[in-house]
Amino acid sequence: MKKNLGKLIGLSLGPGDPGLITRQAYEALTGEAQWCYPVKKRGAESYALSIALAAGLTPPEGHQALLFPMTHDPEKLLAAWKQAALEVLELLSGGRDLLFLVEGDSSTYSTFGHLARTLKQLEPLVPIETWAGVSSFNAAAARLEMPLAEVDDKLAVIPAGYGVAVIERLLEDFDRLVLLKVKPVLDEVIDLVERLDLIPYCRFIEKAGSPEERQVLDISTLRGQKVNYLSLILIHHPNRLPEELKRGCKKVEP
Amino acid sequence: MKKNLGKLIGLSLGPGDPGLITRQAYEALTGEAQWCYPVKKRGAESYALSIALAAGLTPPEGHQALLFPMTHDPEKLLAAWKQAALEVLELLSGGRDLLFLVEGDSSTYSTFGHLARTLKQLEPLVPIETWAGVSSFNAAAARLEMPLAEVDDKLAVIPAGYGVAVIERLLEDFDRLVLLKVKPVLDEVIDLVERLDLIPYCRFIEKAGSPEERQVLDISTLRGQKVNYLSLILIHHPNRLPEELKRGCKKVEP
Repeated sequence: MKKNLGKLIGLSLGPGDPGLITRQAYEALTGEAQWCYPVKKRGAESYALSIALAAGLTPPEGHQALLFPMTHDPEKLLAAWKQAALEVLELLSGGRDLLFLVEGDSSTYSTFGHLARTLKQLEPLVPIETWAGVSSFNAAAARLEMPLAEVDDKLAVIPAGYGVAVIERLLEDFDRLVLLKVKPVLDEVIDLVERLDLIPYCRFIEKAGSPEERQVLDISTLRGQKVNYLSLILIHHPNRLPEELKRGCKKVEP
Repeated sequence: MKKNLGKLIGLSLGPGDPGLITRQAYEALTGEAQWCYPVKKRGAESYALSIALAAGLTPPEGHQALLFPMTHDPEKLLAAWKQAALEVLELLSGGRDLLFLVEGDSSTYSTFGHLARTLKQLEPLVPIETWAGVSSFNAAAARLEMPLAEVDDKLAVIPAGYGVAVIERLLEDFDRLVLLKVKPVLDEVIDLVERLDLIPYCRFIEKAGSPEERQVLDISTLRGQKVNYLSLILIHHPNRLPEELKRGCKKVEP
């Protein structure tokens, strides 16, 4: 095993607003560590890197893009993760710490988990840390002034692509839903929540906490529109039949 | 209506580690704004305030505790929220901005939502902002090096007090569960996940991201133990029957 390996840090940068970068992430970005960051294609821009640049930071010489292609072909994905892990291992072999820049939170729908796992398989003793950040749906809730969860709420977060039958079933069971990646099923979701009289309890946001943010409070106005890939809908089901908690606190309905 | 009201800001401080305070929150805390923060009893310490103190910050003169009692009596709660909102309105009437310090994220199981709503009822034109932060379960996932969600995972976050029947049902439907406030039902949860052969896929953490943090990777060792109120369990159901996404990405199982 190689000696004096640097540490890999999954560095969460929050959803885009440089003000939502944590203090420890910012401090690391102004320190001695090397940077790497995911791109979808060779030569493409990295959204994670753009957040650090928007914070006025300058990448260290030798900063490196790692390719995480937009595919669901398991073979291609495994090959890409392995290649990225090999490049990371090479960067770490000099002993310098390496920041893997992540948009949002590095534990939440992030490429960092795949990279960390693949790297551990190549080199079990490599030191890896995950540093938490503000996730896109926490930022969305704040910007929309719509709590993500309150008191004893049950919260579900799902990609909307599971379809409206799944979403309708979850609305029977959950007080709050976060529907991610709503783009491909937006009209069907609008039809569903209209049928359930929940339009006033839905809010839409695109690129929450970034300069291009767009909020839509009446989601029925979005019917037929094209929306960004980074868009989500929050739903608060206000009339869900309250369940009794078995232990702990009871449901409060003041 | 009063003129020149200051702005109320729901200021998220993250789960306890001062490094997880966002840059914009830290900047606001070093500025001209007044501070207030929740306490459970008159004269009690405020966990939110302690995070700002741990960051080396000094509260401005006149900083104020607001009482949010630990009760589920709707009448007492409404009275407390109204009293807190009146105190906030008084503080804002001087025109100075007011930071309401929140542990974790101010949209996620926070008292801030109640305060903001009650204040809006008293004075609809008062300016209110919510500033996002790192939630306790994002910090827990990072510290435990266990992703909160990956690829097309479905994630549910619930107070564990709903009981093991609810938890067992959710495990059929969700890839990832966050069980909050596990203290009163801990032994029953351990029995359940043992029966489902999921012990290796559970991790426990107490006071994530604080100096008193405790991690337990084999939760069966916790049977019969008393744990802190601020403790949670992450479960990753690795063998859940994959559903096909109707639209968007397919489930990846490499």
